Amino acid sequence: MGNTFGRHFRVTTFGESHGVALGTVIDGVPAGLRVSKEDIQSEMDRRRPGQSNVTSPRTEKDEIEILSGIFEEKTTGAPVCIIVRNKDADSSKYEQIKHLFRPGHADYAFLNKYGMRDYRGGGRSSGRETLCRVAAGAVAKKIITGTKVIAYTLQVGNIRAEKIDYGEIEKNSVRCPDKTAAKKMEKLIESVKKEGDSIGGIIEVVVKNPPQGLGDPVFDKLDADIAKAILSIGAVKGIEFGSGFGAAGLKGSENNDSFYSKAGKISTRTNNAGGISGGISTGQDIIFRAVIKAPSSITKEQSTVDDKGKATKISVEGRHDPCLCPRAVPVIEHMTNIVLADAVLAQRLVRA
Amino acid sequence: MGNTFGRHFRVTTFGESHGVALGTVIDGVPAGLRVSKEDIQSEMDRRRPGQSNVTSPRTEKDEIEILSGIFEEKTTGAPVCIIVRNKDADSSKYEQIKHLFRPGHADYAFLNKYGMRDYRGGGRSSGRETLCRVAAGAVAKKIITGTKVIAYTLQVGNIRAEKIDYGEIEKNSVRCPDKTAAKKMEKLIESVKKEGDSIGGIIEVVVKNPPQGLGDPVFDKLDADIAKAILSIGAVKGIEFGSGFGAAGLKGSENNDSFYSKAGKISTRTNNAGGISGGISTGQDIIFRAVIKAPSSITKEQSTVDDKGKATKISVEGRHDPCLCPRAVPVIEHMTNIVLADAVLAQRLVRA
Amino acid sequence: MGNTFGRHFRVTTFGESHGVALGTVIDGVPAGLRVSKEDIQSEMDRRRPGQSNVTSPRTEKDEIEILSGIFEEKTTGAPVCIIVRNKDADSSKYEQIKHLFRPGHADYAFLNKYGMRDYRGGGRSSGRETLCRVAAGAVAKKIITGTKVIAYTLQVGNIRAEKIDYGEIEKNSVRCPDKTAAKKMEKLIESVKKEGDSIGGIIEVVVKNPPQGLGDPVFDKLDADIAKAILSIGAVKGIEFGSGFGAAGLKGSENNDSFYSKAGKISTRTNNAGGISGGISTGQDIIFRAVIKAPSSITKEQSTVDDKGKATKISVEGRHDPCLCPRAVPVIEHMTNIVLADAVLAQRLVRA
Amino acid sequence: MGNTFGRHFRVTTFGESHGVALGTVIDGVPAGLRVSKEDIQSEMDRRRPGQSNVTSPRTEKDEIEILSGIFEEKTTGAPVCIIVRNKDADSSKYEQIKHLFRPGHADYAFLNKYGMRDYRGGGRSSGRETLCRVAAGAVAKKIITGTKVIAYTLQVGNIRAEKIDYGEIEKNSVRCPDKTAAKKMEKLIESVKKEGDSIGGIIEVVVKNPPQGLGDPVFDKLDADIAKAILSIGAVKGIEFGSGFGAAGLKGSENNDSFYSKAGKISTRTNNAGGISGGISTGQDIIFRAVIKAPSSITKEQSTVDDKGKATKISVEGRHDPCLCPRAVPVIEHMTNIVLADAVLAQRLVRA
Repeated sequence: MGNTFGRHFRVTTFGESHGVALGTVIDGVPAGLRVSKEDIQSEMDRRRPGQSNVTSPRTEKDEIEILSGIFEEKTTGAPVCIIVRNKDADSSKYEQIKHLFRPGHADYAFLNKYGMRDYRGGGRSSGRETLCRVAAGAVAKKIITGTKVIAYTLQVGNIRAEKIDYGEIEKNSVRCPDKTAAKKMEKLIESVKKEGDSIGGIIEVVVKNPPQGLGDPVFDKLDADIAKAILSIGAVKGIEFGSGFGAAGLKGSENNDSFYSKAGKISTRTNNAGGISGGISTGQDIIFRAVIKAPSSITKEQSTVDDKGKATKISVEGRHDPCLCPRAVPVIEHMTNIVLADAVLAQRLVRA
Repeated sequence: MGNTFGRHFRVTTFGESHGVALGTVIDGVPAGLRVSKEDIQSEMDRRRPGQSNVTSPRTEKDEIEILSGIFEEKTTGAPVCIIVRNKDADSSKYEQIKHLFRPGHADYAFLNKYGMRDYRGGGRSSGRETLCRVAAGAVAKKIITGTKVIAYTLQVGNIRAEKIDYGEIEKNSVRCPDKTAAKKMEKLIESVKKEGDSIGGIIEVVVKNPPQGLGDPVFDKLDADIAKAILSIGAVKGIEFGSGFGAAGLKGSENNDSFYSKAGKISTRTNNAGGISGGISTGQDIIFRAVIKAPSSITKEQSTVDDKGKATKISVEGRHDPCLCPRAVPVIEHMTNIVLADAVLAQRLVRA
Repeated sequence: MGNTFGRHFRVTTFGESHGVALGTVIDGVPAGLRVSKEDIQSEMDRRRPGQSNVTSPRTEKDEIEILSGIFEEKTTGAPVCIIVRNKDADSSKYEQIKHLFRPGHADYAFLNKYGMRDYRGGGRSSGRETLCRVAAGAVAKKIITGTKVIAYTLQVGNIRAEKIDYGEIEKNSVRCPDKTAAKKMEKLIESVKKEGDSIGGIIEVVVKNPPQGLGDPVFDKLDADIAKAILSIGAVKGIEFGSGFGAAGLKGSENNDSFYSKAGKISTRTNNAGGISGGISTGQDIIFRAVIKAPSSITKEQSTVDDKGKATKISVEGRHDPCLCPRAVPVIEHMTNIVLADAVLAQRLVRA
Repeated sequence: MGNTFGRHFRVTTFGESHGVALGTVIDGVPAGLRVSKEDIQSEMDRRRPGQSNVTSPRTEKDEIEILSGIFEEKTTGAPVCIIVRNKDADSSKYEQIKHLFRPGHADYAFLNKYGMRDYRGGGRSSGRETLCRVAAGAVAKKIITGTKVIAYTLQVGNIRAEKIDYGEIEKNSVRCPDKTAAKKMEKLIESVKKEGDSIGGIIEVVVKNPPQGLGDPVFDKLDADIAKAILSIGAVKGIEFGSGFGAAGLKGSENNDSFYSKAGKISTRTNNAGGISGGISTGQDIIFRAVIKAPSSITKEQSTVDDKGKATKISVEGRHDPCLCPRAVPVIEHMTNIVLADAVLAQRLVRA
């Protein structure tokens, strides 16, 4: 279980890192959306490995094949299935460590859970699964036209963007909105890579012009659903909305966003709520940040044990990302698209 | 929608702050669990208002009535329904502000969503709904015997606990594991209360002796489910696991938890993962922190608008908590119980 | 599990025949529907025991209490909880047979399933649970205004209605649309009752003016959902749509409903499909029939065994219905309302 | 929506009759089941077209490709995706009737629902979708070892099997357990085929040695779930369990199955309940019958209208089955496997 996300726009993913293919089936796609293969492929290209010197060199083109649900470039209301075949899977590196538990990886947890594991490339726990989310998000995007999800690398290691220029994001290999910081981040990543190490970071998301009223008041609050969506991405270890962890130190009079009205439009003077109040979008920008841990796969030697509990050393070979932020940006962006599309559909149901 | 949580241990809640009653229906409770009324009531008492000088003075005893699913103090496999009648609802204070949007509250968002709202005491968006979660969590607890969820106030304003003594938690009114810090926190809360203001904080949770293998690899990762559960509590604005936001600045070699084996038991030297790897519990303590914003209801005057957009001032009267941490501790604890009980049941399904 | 029905209009029921109360929580009720207590109570009165000489004499008024979700006689979008307290439960008759398996009842099956059972009045397996469905159906009805679900007793024993006059249905105690047949049915029921026996029957449902396009093409076909809804009522042992089991003997050229157009409106000359084609409502009347077995509780002596497997005789005392049709008519009608309301909401999601 | 079936063993299907491929994703498959490609392919071969003179001549081999979830012939706990590419789709026959509504088909209903339709071969409403169910059922079967689902053609037109010899079923092209009746059925089918017509029938299912305790007491009764599963197959118009529609004419004393005990095993003398009591399997054989309407596609000329409402004649060319029973037998059998596997998993959750 656990391979489906969403209530109305339901995304199911399948496939393993070194299996035949990965893919997604999306149920609940409204009929009549215009979706071309290129609409999806262009988003896939932003996530695929091998796109720069700061990403994994695995040479996958991640070319999609649409199996169902789209007829003459329009969705039909039937489930949309999209697959990507694995072309450059190289399992040889995994054969030699199939009895070792890689630190930071789910090998040990998987074995405990299932009593077995597909050790090749991490199997189902591989970050490669996120390509399915990008494909689904590219379809979700068609449902929330008028709204724009902008994600970017805010921090790598201890280097933080100091200015936010959305126009810069896609111009540098780390997807940072601050040109100067971007350069430093690239250098830092290259340097840890040389050491056989890796580095963490923070991604920030701003949703411009979100519809009002998204999210439900109790368990399916919009922020709760976004939190689940984002934490379901492998390397994410935390999320905060608006003033976030900083809210601990604030008084109500400081943290409350007071309302004002201008030209007939009600708005708030501050946005400490991050655009979500009582779990429901207010219409202000939705703002959140997610922390991404350093990739667990490093060539640097680490202590570990094998599946008999015997102590040993491990150096994780393979073609890995030294920092996940650049490629996680589109993944987080598209998981957000999926949550929003789902919430937009849900909102069709709430009034008599 | 959005009033049900969990896949196998399914908790549905209903009721409004100033309505007839609130309650929960729990479906999926295994037959044969020993559950007495007192088992549930004692947990409710930890959450109820009026328990100390740092909580809301509303005098609700929150006495439960079990309507179904328990026969001769044993669960029968039928859904368990538990209700609590509202006794001390005082809607008079709300009559005068029913056309105003309280800053920080969901009034405006609700109106946009539903085209109407039950303004009395926040209606469905009230924190009073969380009593249902405590009742359900008290039942959930019976499924995860052997595991102990410990929650406590780590921080109030900028005062942070410096030592963690679990034995202290229930001894002070803020539920802080550090006696000295607790006193400072109490003073701070009393002081903001006098100003007609309120204050935020951070709650930390440690799950001792969790089963291994809980959580699913992709969307229903254990941390993703916990994040959703915790963010679905009204005032929570962020969550982080293990090294959390600090992981941004760490290298893989620093953040990875290396394995070792002792007396035949595999463990990790550090616990930066917070007990969850690849979305699956490893058996190490599960550790996370949630930030709680300051309560939105303050008597201090704030700027706002009415539902026609007219600017005005508001002072929110009523019987409110000056800091949510003390009463949020049992709520967060029991939402965690619910997630764990659900995951424990899920785990019964994964092997042939 | 298994206590919730519906995807968008989600009805959860709880409670046992001889417990404190039974009730329903309905999630997904759109905000702004006008619903009074009387709207629901009047439907409950059609189902309650003791309404005529052909129904159980248990004297329950089944008075509802609305706990949540309705404010000033309008739904708010919050879950609606309605409960009915058991007033006339008499468990004394059950004490003496608590170790016996009543033929036709679920006693044996329950014990095997749960390893225990609440033997009082059948516990959760009692037909009394259906009162919750009527309450929920009364709310569902508000969503499908313009459509009318008409249910009636078509057959009791081997007596079948020969004419269908909807105006007659509520005028006789068996709810048969044929006045003459109704009298014969009443006599038959009284006669089997005197023998300490009971009798089966068939209920037919006609949905007038259903919306077009309800139901989904694959698993959630409208007829599949209706079948599940109706078979989930205790005594129903079969269902057929349109030409039903008679279709086995028909050729395609006989069973196909050919299309014609009149005054710009497309219709079919026959309605062998029962108003559902490919799982989707066509706009023609939806027609189906459900067979209701004779009540299992009879005073006539039967052979059985106790829970140790020892052979014995049993005579089931208590206050039982000699024929379920009269009271099953409103239950089936309201389960149909629930399915239709759910499908009407689903239909809001299918187009871009 | 509506493309997923099951709660724990979750089968999602996708694909259109004349699209690129059809397939299924099964989530919730326990890890460690031995499943070979041949295990699935052999079941597909029983359903594929072109297998005899009484089935459609479309020459599809329906060769499966397993994309995920199986590693070294064992399930891994990850979702299993199986696809079949369409090889012999011939859409030319559909081009000319793309504006006509075929009587008995869902063309008209689809257009009303979605505002558009994929007219090629019925698109998503094609019976070809059922191949996905067979693939999923072949996996489900691995979960219910010890139990055997036997389905067969009981009736074609008005010819009914008079003896039930399971050994005969796979020996004749109609899958009838009565050799003599089978011959008559074959002749009848060939004769209606020559007339350009088609014919209906009845399929009976007997589940030998089912586990006790399957099904839930209220909405998810085992018979309700089976009814939904079977009615979700395109041409099925009714279902009955045990004594079925015949129960209308029976008294309680006739229809109740009385218990007896033999060699320490409790059983019932009759099986009018069809093996399900109160929605829960008793351990007796589960028995039900489904009526299958005649295929709607006939070359015989029929009256219809086009999408402008203009009256016209239609003769449906293409490669169609003259009677669905032979190929529906494995489909119904595997839908039953799916329901049982799901219920078997559900049963793991009910006891403390």
